[in-house]
Amino acid sequence: MYVIENHSRPAAGLPGIRHTTLAGSDDGLRNLSVWRQTIDGGGATPPHRHDCEEVVMVDSGRGELRIGGAVHAFGPDTTLVIPANADHQIVNTGEAPLRLVAVFSASPVEAVFPDGTPIALPWRS
Amino acid sequence: MYVIENHSRPAAGLPGIRHTTLAGSDDGLRNLSVWRQTIDGGGATPPHRHDCEEVVMVDSGRGELRIGGAVHAFGPDTTLVIPANADHQIVNTGEAPLRLVAVFSASPVEAVFPDGTPIALPWRS
Repeated sequence: MYVIENHSRPAAGLPGIRHTTLAGSDDGLRNLSVWRQTIDGGGATPPHRHDCEEVVMVDSGRGELRIGGAVHAFGPDTTLVIPANADHQIVNTGEAPLRLVAVFSASPVEAVFPDGTPIALPWRS
Repeated sequence: MYVIENHSRPAAGLPGIRHTTLAGSDDGLRNLSVWRQTIDGGGATPPHRHDCEEVVMVDSGRGELRIGGAVHAFGPDTTLVIPANADHQIVNTGEAPLRLVAVFSASPVEAVFPDGTPIALPWRS
């Protein structure tokens, strides 16, 4: 299928995170995954890494990218670049929802915690 | 640099297309490129292909994806999946601007016309 209606995609999530996979391996992709997420105020991704590259487009909200032992604040209309194999965490430091689209250079995305334990993601990717 | 202010990126374009590279090889990426484009009413990309996968997120506007000998109409809040090596063209069939973000599983992106002639893109990717 070449054209996907975004609202047709199933909703999923983790505590404090609403997730939709816009495109991924179920669509025939092998080297691209596209996720749309909303992180609630005070919410965060778990600290994690993956062996593919990631770019995050921040549509609205504010937060911090914790990576490489440093904290990088960001606002809306910004783009985050996350190299492969770098432990990182995205934190919504505000009260408003943090709306973003994350893209990855692999499909499915295989994420692990910093100690190497695989993360069982509750969505298709 | 982990955080990019989108407005800091240079503007580029082709006739009828305004382009910004949000992330790509200049940011250390090798397997991801992220482009934001606005295609004017009646405008279109040239017919082309590339040996990487592409996903297009359509934010607003309406158009057609021409691929595989068929025409697929799309509206806003849709996602287009374009396999590697597939000749394709995106056409704005409306009068309103067609706003999209295109992501690719390579950086830089090396696009060619259907006859194989390389396209000299006027932006960094």
